[in-house]
Amino acid sequence: MKMGCSESNAGKIADVFLAAELRGHASHGMIRIKDYFDLWKAGRINVTPNVRIVHETPSTAVVDGDNSIGMVAALFSMETAIEKALGAGTGWVATRNSNHFGIAGYYAMKALKHDMIGICLTNANPLVAPTFSISRMMGTNPIAVAIPALKQPPFVADFATTPVARGKLAVAEKKGEKVPFGYVQDWQGNASDDPAILRSGGSMLTLGGDRIHGSHKGYCLSAIVDIFSAVFSGANFGPFVPPSVAFLPVPGKKVGEGTGHFFGAMRIDAFQPAEEFKAKMDEWILTFRSAVPAAGQERVLIPGDPERESGERILREGITLVPAIRDDLVSIADEMGISFE
Amino acid sequence: MKMGCSESNAGKIADVFLAAELRGHASHGMIRIKDYFDLWKAGRINVTPNVRIVHETPSTAVVDGDNSIGMVAALFSMETAIEKALGAGTGWVATRNSNHFGIAGYYAMKALKHDMIGICLTNANPLVAPTFSISRMMGTNPIAVAIPALKQPPFVADFATTPVARGKLAVAEKKGEKVPFGYVQDWQGNASDDPAILRSGGSMLTLGGDRIHGSHKGYCLSAIVDIFSAVFSGANFGPFVPPSVAFLPVPGKKVGEGTGHFFGAMRIDAFQPAEEFKAKMDEWILTFRSAVPAAGQERVLIPGDPERESGERILREGITLVPAIRDDLVSIADEMGISFE
Repeated sequence: MKMGCSESNAGKIADVFLAAELRGHASHGMIRIKDYFDLWKAGRINVTPNVRIVHETPSTAVVDGDNSIGMVAALFSMETAIEKALGAGTGWVATRNSNHFGIAGYYAMKALKHDMIGICLTNANPLVAPTFSISRMMGTNPIAVAIPALKQPPFVADFATTPVARGKLAVAEKKGEKVPFGYVQDWQGNASDDPAILRSGGSMLTLGGDRIHGSHKGYCLSAIVDIFSAVFSGANFGPFVPPSVAFLPVPGKKVGEGTGHFFGAMRIDAFQPAEEFKAKMDEWILTFRSAVPAAGQERVLIPGDPERESGERILREGITLVPAIRDDLVSIADEMGISFE
Repeated sequence: MKMGCSESNAGKIADVFLAAELRGHASHGMIRIKDYFDLWKAGRINVTPNVRIVHETPSTAVVDGDNSIGMVAALFSMETAIEKALGAGTGWVATRNSNHFGIAGYYAMKALKHDMIGICLTNANPLVAPTFSISRMMGTNPIAVAIPALKQPPFVADFATTPVARGKLAVAEKKGEKVPFGYVQDWQGNASDDPAILRSGGSMLTLGGDRIHGSHKGYCLSAIVDIFSAVFSGANFGPFVPPSVAFLPVPGKKVGEGTGHFFGAMRIDAFQPAEEFKAKMDEWILTFRSAVPAAGQERVLIPGDPERESGERILREGITLVPAIRDDLVSIADEMGISFE
């Protein structure tokens, strides 16, 4: 709010940060506050945006985020998708002129309480090379899909289309550790286990790692996320997506407006009676939960299990604030004349 | 037609087989004719089906395939999705009580001439284990997405959610070769390079291969395809999907009707003016085609390039009929009193 956000928008942004921490994705939580603060100080983000629909049909809309902090445009867009679904059975919204929005799963999960399936995609600044290439052309472009069940917790898949998130490389680098082959390559496209290789022209690899292990399929997925997020909406695609940190420059070429997202909401009862569908999802979940574990493994997980269990633990134990992040927050508080307790 | 299919349905089925051969996916082409023939002889497939919509909203429908040969139900469903999209901007169809339908990309590409994006998913008989498990719970569950461009050929992604197709294991086995680690595991969940391991309780792995390389993301993808195809439609899910060959028994437990598919059609102009969108796709494609190749690589591909180039070559050179498949076809022709030329 001290940056100029309305109380309503500030609340939305804080809620997504909190959800990221609770779901065990601290890489998308409070560590990002300084990034957003620096983008604002650099005049690269709009804290009083006019987020609006610029085109629509019964089941679709295109939203212009007016360069808002990503959460504000994303929540408006997901709510629009849900409203469209109420009328037409399904709703699909492509969003341009937005920014980093936290965790994709947060928006997909907004559909659950309406007895809808939620979908969320976003592109991101380029760090990832297509198969056979050394050019950083794509972000870690995540896919989130949330599907409600009856007595079981919902199915919530939320994953980057790379083998690991960018944050895992940073952690390994800080610890002085190597990473497994299949995560990154050097500037010539040779396999590498150096988590710092991005600093010397290297790039991240798509899900699959190398061609023989299906990296071309990861490339397809990441490309689909990019096209749905940016070409559908009129945002920047691929190598032209602006960075979500102020210390990296905006790309020289613009092919659209800001970062792009894509949202879907599908009413369960557009396909099956809601109670029947949810009971069947319970059966699906129980079937997969009862799969036989491999030697040395305790159990088979359902997408969403680790994040939900993380949330239960953190609600008991509290959020751990890493000293470096605390220092950032104290320094921002000082600069803005807020007391940090 | 000798099996009792109408001329119209027989033509549809033949067209999908031909498309599979042309796109270089012979594993889904004429080699399957014997499988379909044997299923018919075993009374496990309906050649005079009443394929019909059983539920609908402005943007969705559920189709009952009446145990038809998969192509018949799939084409009807994709056409229904396209019609829904004409009215509501997008159309989404879940199909139950179907069977093996050939290549998913064929149906997704049907949307292209309508200036629509096409999507097609299907589940399949279980060969694949979820992360941390040794149970065969999922098929190779493919995802196909076709997106039109203006002067460039369309973007067509069509891929199994495993590192390789089942057919590649069979080929390696016949040649007496090993396969790379990351494709299969043994009955205890140990890494294996034996392509015949499925015969001794082994299973295929999801895209990513192992947990450290993101197999849990491949598991998410395969699970999403299964749920969209089967729970949306009322088909059998996961381990209960019936096999697409007559020499394997139908699973003892039924949780729905037949095999399930899912189809989507999205009108481009539900998001952007069609010419603008397609020109932007040209720009996307040219941008990615100009990515710098890695050392030793000739060029960077766009999804759909290999299949299109395969089609151009095969149209010049003709389809190669492997002797074993030719023998099958001759034997079927003899049995049905047709001359094979």
